[in-house]
Amino acid sequence: MRLRNKPWAKEKLLNYPQFVVHHPETWKEKWHDLFGNNHPIHIEIGTGKGRFITEMAKANPEINYIGIEAYTSVIVSALDRAIEAEVPNLKLLNMNAQKLIDVFGPGEIDRLYLNFSDPWPKNKHEKRRLTYKSFLDMYAKVLVSGGELHFKTDNQALFEYSLISFSEYGLKLKYISLDLHNSDFQGNIMTEYEEKFSQKGNRIYRCEVQFPTISK
Amino acid sequence: MRLRNKPWAKEKLLNYPQFVVHHPETWKEKWHDLFGNNHPIHIEIGTGKGRFITEMAKANPEINYIGIEAYTSVIVSALDRAIEAEVPNLKLLNMNAQKLIDVFGPGEIDRLYLNFSDPWPKNKHEKRRLTYKSFLDMYAKVLVSGGELHFKTDNQALFEYSLISFSEYGLKLKYISLDLHNSDFQGNIMTEYEEKFSQKGNRIYRCEVQFPTISK
Ligand SMILES: C[S@@+](CC[C@H](N)C(=O)[O-])C[C@H]1O[C@@H](n2cnc3c(N)ncnc32)[C@H](O)[C@@H]1O
Ligand SMILES: C[S@@+](CC[C@H](N)C(=O)[O-])C[C@H]1O[C@@H](n2cnc3c(N)ncnc32)[C@H](O)[C@@H]1O
Repeated sequence: MRLRNKPWAKEKLLNYPQFVVHHPETWKEKWHDLFGNNHPIHIEIGTGKGRFITEMAKANPEINYIGIEAYTSVIVSALDRAIEAEVPNLKLLNMNAQKLIDVFGPGEIDRLYLNFSDPWPKNKHEKRRLTYKSFLDMYAKVLVSGGELHFKTDNQALFEYSLISFSEYGLKLKYISLDLHNSDFQGNIMTEYEEKFSQKGNRIYRCEVQFPTISK
Repeated sequence: MRLRNKPWAKEKLLNYPQFVVHHPETWKEKWHDLFGNNHPIHIEIGTGKGRFITEMAKANPEINYIGIEAYTSVIVSALDRAIEAEVPNLKLLNMNAQKLIDVFGPGEIDRLYLNFSDPWPKNKHEKRRLTYKSFLDMYAKVLVSGGELHFKTDNQALFEYSLISFSEYGLKLKYISLDLHNSDFQGNIMTEYEEKFSQKGNRIYRCEVQFPTISK
């Protein structure tokens, strides 16, 4: 899917500046200005086709959402959803999360979502996992003191790895479900991958961790 | 099972002082003397019928094991296993873990095992769970600096609860498996409950957490 060439996608993104923010570095430390309010900002890394972030934006108008996705050919589907939803509190960034600290200032983000992140199962690819410590370092910089990371996946090995990575980093586990769809968790909003993998019978794992509450 | 009256059980325990330590408070800070060596001491709380602790003692002669079980009618089965195994590095204590700090001195214990602890599913019984913070307080006192707690259960809710309790307490997660019997974990020694519940098809959860490495 990702590899399918969509030459028109890049142009389409350029045609919707109200949803897709180009040159996001220029908004560093000014994201509240862009949204035109002081509501909390929640970001999702690896937004994919955008179902989660769009539904969240519809359900929570008092939160500003930013979906970050590296692949143009994928984020263009998220744009279609944003156009249809017509929500003012949603922006999309077509970029790699590696650039996070060039784009957001210290403490500018209130919460970070990771949903069904690529598992990178081989040990030699550990550094590419979005819960690897170098990514946690970036998240720590852009999140407010006491900010939270919410993570869902059906990948058991990635979930186990991430719990250990979070603990090693000193994050506090605030919530965990080892079988989200058979839990009493209220108001879950499904992602595209979540629907696909839960229909296959896979368990969905979910946790919330909190970064230290220290003054920056 | 627990409620079945075994009037002969108490007497039988008294007949095997080489395995069952009576008045364990008298050995506080002297457990190495009792074992007659300086090997590390590992304890299990809620030993039940003793399969785990006896097999561990057989497999690891350079470790001293102590199994703690509140019910006389249950620990008597552990005694039968100890008698058969004839291991010098195993002691059994018929007592409630509430008394832990009367029986062990600061840092006297190197590792603590909890296997298939009673789940106490009702919120109002939270304080009875062996992973509740008041128990972690006791474990922190008797464990060496950097000592570990190893925990297995098939009870999803207890496992979730315990992971959060450990994290709140500041313990570091060193290992986790969300499906032990389908993992690459080597040398697992099954408990009675583990055999029963895994045969029913239940997943077995396992984790290792480490207490802070501070000087006491
Ligand atoms: C497995 S998909 C999941 C998509 C969506 N979150 C869902 O649950 O349906 C992972 C997505 O993360 C994106 N991604 C992976 N690493 C990224 C990174 N470093 N920066 C931005 N996007 C990334 C991938 O391109 C892919 O679209
Ligand atoms: C569910 S059984 C599990 C037994 C064994 N560990 C196994 O996995 O087969 C729990 C055991 O813990 C014991 N137990 C529970 N709370 C205890 C406490 N506070 N002190 C000592 N033993 C306790 C119970 O009497 C029971 O035998």
